[in-house]
Amino acid sequence: MAKEKKTFDLKEYPFPTEEIPRLNIDNPETEKRIAAGLPVVITDSGLVRSALHWDLDYLQGNIGDGKFTVYKSKNKKFQYFDDKKVDTFKDFEKPMEHLDLTFPEFVKKLKTAKPGKDKVYLQQALNEGVGKRIVADFLGFNWSWVTEQQKKNKFGALTSNLLLIGMEGNVTPAHYDEQENFFAQIRGYKRFILFHPDQFKCMYPYPTYHPCDRQSQVDFDNPDYKRFPKFKDVKGYETVVGPGDVLFLPMYWWHQVESLPDHGHTISVTFWYKAGPIGNVVYPLSPQQKVSMMRNLEKMIHQALNNTDEIPEFMQNMVLGRYTDPPA
Amino acid sequence: MAKEKKTFDLKEYPFPTEEIPRLNIDNPETEKRIAAGLPVVITDSGLVRSALHWDLDYLQGNIGDGKFTVYKSKNKKFQYFDDKKVDTFKDFEKPMEHLDLTFPEFVKKLKTAKPGKDKVYLQQALNEGVGKRIVADFLGFNWSWVTEQQKKNKFGALTSNLLLIGMEGNVTPAHYDEQENFFAQIRGYKRFILFHPDQFKCMYPYPTYHPCDRQSQVDFDNPDYKRFPKFKDVKGYETVVGPGDVLFLPMYWWHQVESLPDHGHTISVTFWYKAGPIGNVVYPLSPQQKVSMMRNLEKMIHQALNNTDEIPEFMQNMVLGRYTDPPA
Ligand SMILES: [Zn+2]
Ligand SMILES: [Zn+2]
Repeated sequence: MAKEKKTFDLKEYPFPTEEIPRLNIDNPETEKRIAAGLPVVITDSGLVRSALHWDLDYLQGNIGDGKFTVYKSKNKKFQYFDDKKVDTFKDFEKPMEHLDLTFPEFVKKLKTAKPGKDKVYLQQALNEGVGKRIVADFLGFNWSWVTEQQKKNKFGALTSNLLLIGMEGNVTPAHYDEQENFFAQIRGYKRFILFHPDQFKCMYPYPTYHPCDRQSQVDFDNPDYKRFPKFKDVKGYETVVGPGDVLFLPMYWWHQVESLPDHGHTISVTFWYKAGPIGNVVYPLSPQQKVSMMRNLEKMIHQALNNTDEIPEFMQNMVLGRYTDPPA
Repeated sequence: MAKEKKTFDLKEYPFPTEEIPRLNIDNPETEKRIAAGLPVVITDSGLVRSALHWDLDYLQGNIGDGKFTVYKSKNKKFQYFDDKKVDTFKDFEKPMEHLDLTFPEFVKKLKTAKPGKDKVYLQQALNEGVGKRIVADFLGFNWSWVTEQQKKNKFGALTSNLLLIGMEGNVTPAHYDEQENFFAQIRGYKRFILFHPDQFKCMYPYPTYHPCDRQSQVDFDNPDYKRFPKFKDVKGYETVVGPGDVLFLPMYWWHQVESLPDHGHTISVTFWYKAGPIGNVVYPLSPQQKVSMMRNLEKMIHQALNNTDEIPEFMQNMVLGRYTDPPA
């Protein structure tokens, strides 16, 4: 929505960003960027063409009677956390509440929410429970194009299509995912702020054993530069996607996602693909490979020590004064 | 030499030390300490009883015509470095010079050295090249006792007996070894300053890929507390060994070794044993096990990155701001 973007009143952050290119699906640069692992907003892909008519009423009538994963947040932020890691991490306060609601229950919460009060965000994988018409819409996605991309770029299997329905102003704070993602926008406008994997050092992700693994510890609204000094140097990319747009969001790229305030709720569907095979190792290792390596090392340390309390000191002893200053 | 120790004029260091116990070989506490992996000065062991008559003339006449490893230092410090790691570490200045000398050449250098000038230190494994009388002396060591200790404590194989001949005032700066050691003193007096493996955090060893791997970066004569703040908290143990004394020096214990000034040259022989089998893992891991784990992790990182220049930043990115402050 490059042309429209100037009309959006976007919150300012204390770091510079470049615009993510918006390219037509037929532009040869589009596939070049995907092949290079670079983000791009793809227009006219028709990826979710059969779902562009989705709205809350239609979904409520056709999506089925099951329960849906809905998060509730006291502020506008929906920071993901891993339920499996909560128990091992004492004193952890869940940043949002997990609810299992029927679709009508969710819609009611969304429609009756008052400004400044609790917000809700539906995040549910599309699965067998949906009604016939949704199945037909799903089958009408542009699978031939997205599957061609999967093959050309040697992505692994499609793992899930997540349906996201967010209230205006909802923010998913900066994090990275371990999968490739085609993010398709259906309704409303989402601002994406992205950072290259080489900005890891500026983003200070939580320890891997922490429930907020993969999430930045930095509060973008109030950065603690003392704890996170390199956040001062961070450089990002951004865009706003609207109905019909598809953002290619490469694995390990940091992203904060904001449903624009004052533009109504948002509906999106993700296409998540597993990482492809590693291929030959070429030196120097890529930032992505280094992130993967760090994650594995941290997990090994966690497993070997068998006690999360001992991890920080162990890591500090290994590094502080030893790898923080060039040895004489 | 506990009784004599008061007559030694020992240099003072800015950290407290406790005396290492001196125990007779027949004292049941002696074996308890060895079994517990704690240092102890063992008296009356007779470990090198057949070598107590060794002096420079006798050795010169019987040790053989081969070449001996001799280090030369412009100051009194003989900091070990790994020749194999020198090439990968640019700008490394060797802290001492490696010479290959005949025994008479070494003795001449030792006898003609002038105060304040270059010092020399012979460090040569006893091997087949020695003459008949040295072989006989070697066979007269108290092998039954030391082999009994090896078996009782499940040490691995004897790897070497290093003959050490140092000038008075020679200092081997603080480092740890990856083997168990019975250190037998034959002539002169050596001061040992030891630190428990749990003092790793205070000692700031060089990175494993550095030629001075296993050596502390801290200059005991002039500690840089800004780079190495925890050295302020270090607590040590010490002793002075004289002829006939044997120090049990457990694996991973830090040690600085000083041939006392104004007491003539020193002659010593080490009995180095490989680490025993690991046995069942019991939590929490011991400081020794953590040091071993750190070493393996650092080596893996070195190997994976394939470039020593990238290691410090990688380590910093993994730890700084992520494991240095408790996550909120
Ligand atoms: Zn994400
Ligand atoms: Zn040593």
